[in-house]
Amino acid sequence: MTFDALFVPAALRAAVSDEAWLQAMLEAERALAAAQGSDEELDVDIDVQQLVEQGRAAGNPVEPLVRRLRETAPSAHRGATSQDILDTAAALVARNATALIDDQLDGVARLCAQLADEHRATVMAGRTLLQQAVPITFGLKAASWLVGVVHARERLAAARLPAQLGGAAGTLAAFGDRGVDVLHAYATELDLPEPIVPWHTRRLPVAELGAALAVAAGFLGKIALDVALLAQTEVGEVREAAGGGSSTMPQKQNPVASTLARACVLRAQAAASVLMSALVQEHERAAGAWHAEWGALSDALALTGAAAAWVRQALDGLEVDAERMRANIRDDVLSEAERFGIDATSPEDYLGSASAFVDRALDFHRTR
Amino acid sequence: MTFDALFVPAALRAAVSDEAWLQAMLEAERALAAAQGSDEELDVDIDVQQLVEQGRAAGNPVEPLVRRLRETAPSAHRGATSQDILDTAAALVARNATALIDDQLDGVARLCAQLADEHRATVMAGRTLLQQAVPITFGLKAASWLVGVVHARERLAAARLPAQLGGAAGTLAAFGDRGVDVLHAYATELDLPEPIVPWHTRRLPVAELGAALAVAAGFLGKIALDVALLAQTEVGEVREAAGGGSSTMPQKQNPVASTLARACVLRAQAAASVLMSALVQEHERAAGAWHAEWGALSDALALTGAAAAWVRQALDGLEVDAERMRANIRDDVLSEAERFGIDATSPEDYLGSASAFVDRALDFHRTR
Amino acid sequence: MTFDALFVPAALRAAVSDEAWLQAMLEAERALAAAQGSDEELDVDIDVQQLVEQGRAAGNPVEPLVRRLRETAPSAHRGATSQDILDTAAALVARNATALIDDQLDGVARLCAQLADEHRATVMAGRTLLQQAVPITFGLKAASWLVGVVHARERLAAARLPAQLGGAAGTLAAFGDRGVDVLHAYATELDLPEPIVPWHTRRLPVAELGAALAVAAGFLGKIALDVALLAQTEVGEVREAAGGGSSTMPQKQNPVASTLARACVLRAQAAASVLMSALVQEHERAAGAWHAEWGALSDALALTGAAAAWVRQALDGLEVDAERMRANIRDDVLSEAERFGIDATSPEDYLGSASAFVDRALDFHRTR
Amino acid sequence: MTFDALFVPAALRAAVSDEAWLQAMLEAERALAAAQGSDEELDVDIDVQQLVEQGRAAGNPVEPLVRRLRETAPSAHRGATSQDILDTAAALVARNATALIDDQLDGVARLCAQLADEHRATVMAGRTLLQQAVPITFGLKAASWLVGVVHARERLAAARLPAQLGGAAGTLAAFGDRGVDVLHAYATELDLPEPIVPWHTRRLPVAELGAALAVAAGFLGKIALDVALLAQTEVGEVREAAGGGSSTMPQKQNPVASTLARACVLRAQAAASVLMSALVQEHERAAGAWHAEWGALSDALALTGAAAAWVRQALDGLEVDAERMRANIRDDVLSEAERFGIDATSPEDYLGSASAFVDRALDFHRTR
Repeated sequence: MTFDALFVPAALRAAVSDEAWLQAMLEAERALAAAQGSDEELDVDIDVQQLVEQGRAAGNPVEPLVRRLRETAPSAHRGATSQDILDTAAALVARNATALIDDQLDGVARLCAQLADEHRATVMAGRTLLQQAVPITFGLKAASWLVGVVHARERLAAARLPAQLGGAAGTLAAFGDRGVDVLHAYATELDLPEPIVPWHTRRLPVAELGAALAVAAGFLGKIALDVALLAQTEVGEVREAAGGGSSTMPQKQNPVASTLARACVLRAQAAASVLMSALVQEHERAAGAWHAEWGALSDALALTGAAAAWVRQALDGLEVDAERMRANIRDDVLSEAERFGIDATSPEDYLGSASAFVDRALDFHRTR
Repeated sequence: MTFDALFVPAALRAAVSDEAWLQAMLEAERALAAAQGSDEELDVDIDVQQLVEQGRAAGNPVEPLVRRLRETAPSAHRGATSQDILDTAAALVARNATALIDDQLDGVARLCAQLADEHRATVMAGRTLLQQAVPITFGLKAASWLVGVVHARERLAAARLPAQLGGAAGTLAAFGDRGVDVLHAYATELDLPEPIVPWHTRRLPVAELGAALAVAAGFLGKIALDVALLAQTEVGEVREAAGGGSSTMPQKQNPVASTLARACVLRAQAAASVLMSALVQEHERAAGAWHAEWGALSDALALTGAAAAWVRQALDGLEVDAERMRANIRDDVLSEAERFGIDATSPEDYLGSASAFVDRALDFHRTR
Repeated sequence: MTFDALFVPAALRAAVSDEAWLQAMLEAERALAAAQGSDEELDVDIDVQQLVEQGRAAGNPVEPLVRRLRETAPSAHRGATSQDILDTAAALVARNATALIDDQLDGVARLCAQLADEHRATVMAGRTLLQQAVPITFGLKAASWLVGVVHARERLAAARLPAQLGGAAGTLAAFGDRGVDVLHAYATELDLPEPIVPWHTRRLPVAELGAALAVAAGFLGKIALDVALLAQTEVGEVREAAGGGSSTMPQKQNPVASTLARACVLRAQAAASVLMSALVQEHERAAGAWHAEWGALSDALALTGAAAAWVRQALDGLEVDAERMRANIRDDVLSEAERFGIDATSPEDYLGSASAFVDRALDFHRTR
Repeated sequence: MTFDALFVPAALRAAVSDEAWLQAMLEAERALAAAQGSDEELDVDIDVQQLVEQGRAAGNPVEPLVRRLRETAPSAHRGATSQDILDTAAALVARNATALIDDQLDGVARLCAQLADEHRATVMAGRTLLQQAVPITFGLKAASWLVGVVHARERLAAARLPAQLGGAAGTLAAFGDRGVDVLHAYATELDLPEPIVPWHTRRLPVAELGAALAVAAGFLGKIALDVALLAQTEVGEVREAAGGGSSTMPQKQNPVASTLARACVLRAQAAASVLMSALVQEHERAAGAWHAEWGALSDALALTGAAAAWVRQALDGLEVDAERMRANIRDDVLSEAERFGIDATSPEDYLGSASAFVDRALDFHRTR
């Protein structure tokens, strides 16, 4: 991924790296051994890049891994197929990366809650179609961000990939009549959800994780866009605390964090779309659509997490210029009130349920 | 939509038609009036095409509708903004269309369950990367379809759009301090979920519905692909009951239903992707992304429902050639068993947990 | 397509309607007859909706059409397959719709050229990352729009679909050794490009048309976005002549045309993406991907043309407030000049090649 | 990119690596210096990962690079903006990567031509909707692949990114009235097309390159799909020479190359779609859409090239089983001939213009 160190936090890059996938594959193999009562050691020292290149021959990295494991542990991988190990590794990688994303989203939610609370009386122009409409509060804007982030977090937390174990074509044939028990032991060992039926080509879990990431990323894009629009020179209502400078234009304080967030959003959604398209898989193992998931999943996780991290940075210490917000309001934002025959002499008089909605949002956040 | 009468069932076409949207807008206006205790009549006779064309001036069809309503009901629409009515209409349209889709998915699920049950002992080749691997049963294949369809249904059922009422910029300013109560009465009147905060630009409900449709459609595509592959001349293991003929090649019995299902899937996912991209909306009303949702939502609903209807037709009366399935199995599908030192002299001996998984799938279906 | 009369000009709606497709299919059948020297009449009166519904059985509308034609013209369709007629109809529909789009793009280009010329000395802030950077002219901005529109037009004009004639599987077998001659006569009759080899599943022409539409639409989205941003209340540098009002906020002059343009762009690109995904087609006729093209092509054409029409409306009579542009410029836009040691005492002194680039753009437009 | 060493050839990975981008940025800076007659040395030793991480502050890697360059070359970067250097670097990276892709496509085309020529008399079933229809030759199938690949190559070769030089907002203000001359010298120095007007936010070149990659990738997906379908156990008409084995099922010879090609196609198209969506950019530099291009461009280039390399491997030494092709043909493939009253007693009698089309395709290839 070009310039990934610029976009993606180091922890997330590590969480979806080839090395992380390798460790997750080894964890899956160990759980498989444990589920069968094997006491073989599966600790090997592996050059991950070499392994991945060796995967070109069979079309996946598990086949060379298993060859390597069997040098010292002949029963390794018994009863499983490559996809069992790789899908389970995906579940483990996704669990770890999702925890990191969740942590970023939690940070974003706290900042939104703080802004909502602090600015419940900070009056600003509500803008529709980029035109001033009626007054709102900055607290209400932040409260709506908050509700969205809490929803996105919940959705993401619910999108857990199950363990995978089906054998060559989903029958667990090599385990005779013990298949279902081995599956149960395996999932338990890994603390992953146990699937009702192996999901080699029933990819709803992956697609739903992709959908949750696309939705989370998209909503983060909305927050970033609002920040970038409010930070416009001519609006000047907020400013990122760590706005980026320009080497030649010292006056600029670019909204770098919201800008990079938006870039991550565009790419995260494209990566996630692969996971939804890839639902259409042939028979008991797809000839391509499955293989497309690995990189797309890593990218969707890393870029959604990156978007969250950048939005968090944008909101952290966000300089809110309440005076400017108030001063920017045009007189005619009360024209609706007038039309409705409502006696409002200042924007402060025409805020309706803004504060009540802030309370509802904060309650919603607290109780989740 | 070109040739929509070819792809989409009539009931679904009606459910997302301009007329259906108009009736839903009227229902929203009536609920708004009721929530405010108004007793004005809002029954008007409207030429929907004319109304939609009039909507070009303001950028939405609510503005001309309201002008029309106010001719006889001067307080109509009071306190609301166009988006309140249109979003609520979207919620009503989606509720109706989703019920139709759910009915189709239910039909698909029942057919899958029937196939799973009937064919739990019908042995066929399991195929990975389009190559025969180890034996499975057709019942297991259908059981996996079943689990996916049940999941897709649940996900879709959970994706309900809430009522929308926020006024010009989400404060419900025109209702003074009664806004929250009016919102509650309005949602209750419509029997729609009540949002915590108006969601004019917090589009997670729409995006999540889009995601649920994309996932459902994608999985329907998997079933249709399996049917089309099994129906290949050289495989010949299934045949659609109502396979389409060719005017010049009388021998052909084309898998028309699975073919059209796959076409609908491709387009449904593209329409749904708009709903996820459109999360990135400006301030209190978006200048474009909101307007993009209307048609995309209708298309995603109609085409997902159409995909479900075609898959249902493909499975309804599906001719399963169990003998051909058995005959197609190559001898070497037992090579894995041999390698594992398992004593299997026929494919029937090497089915592992296939039947157990069928039971689990049928149980899962029954208990949902 | 929901609310299509709101988004899409009537001429474009007609150009991609079922009726237009039917007439194009008839034109293809007549050209086929002519190419074979048949003198049968192929003028029939057909209820297009009925025909389309009948197409559900065979999976396309040509099969029932041919049955109907053969009632009076027994040799109709001889040697062709349904796809020949439908692909050729697509070529004809696309040719007509593209001409309408081209006309809109031409209008957009002329308006851009006019703005570029008129405003070559209208100084405004150049904005990067939505922050004021250094001065530019509005003429330069319009000149860049102009170059993009001219490029988009050229690209679209080059994306012509060829005639299609291959028979059941691309061999023109029914014509014996005269196939190539019949193909030539057929393409000539229709004045469509003659393909080197039938393109039943080599869908580059359709995908490239989709790509050209996606690119044109995307760039129209850039112009619309610029207009919407410049029209923001706090910027106020331009105003759409026919800005839309609000029923409750009389002060608002919403940038309706650029808003609707942006909505069309989002959907046009999604429709066009189907045409690129659908390149992956099986053997000699795809089981689904081909069928997905019809509606997607119509939508991509209609929505790109609609985007062009809305951008044209946005630019037509655009109120450019040159004084506001000048007044909005912050003093520090000269900080770069200062840093470079360039003696610039006003924005007018620091415009570099802005005017030269306007000339280049106008020349480019004139000579194409 | 997860497991990129498995999917992407080493040369392509290198061509889009951070190091390649850095070298391209340096080349751009050197050309800029040369175009201004500077004789400063711009050879510095840089830790690219450190540089990229430093880019987090300003939102791009050029800003820290320039700081570094100016330590020894104070006039470095004079008159340019970060985007000038990064866009020009993108043009150089794309040129190099495109040359590698072109080489792979050339290889694919040669193999297609060879197959078309060798198998012009190899009769097989033509298949529509995955059902046998009428006879074709394998030569005709390969000829159609050939025409598509030649078209895709031409399209890709035409999609060259121009040099970029516009200064902070596209006026080249820092160059006074010499801007246009410096731009010319700069483009000449780099041997890149000279733009008519700087294209900071007129992203058609990038989008068109994206489109060309999406189209090339999609068509490669069609070839790969055909190979995978023909290689099915039950069809068995072709076999990849280097088919992948399975650790537990020794009989399997998986179509690994076409499988991995299809995976690359899915992801390449998603990456390319970002480049089309990203056309919608604000004012003189986008706040996010520009930044999304870098990684998407690298991915689209790498994955399209990878798809080409895998298709090339699939076709290289492809084992074509002409006897099986002939034996698979069902008797009823002559039913159309019979219906048309054509005297064809064997498939060989009903091939129409198949051979003529092969000639046309080979000619087309030779003369391009």
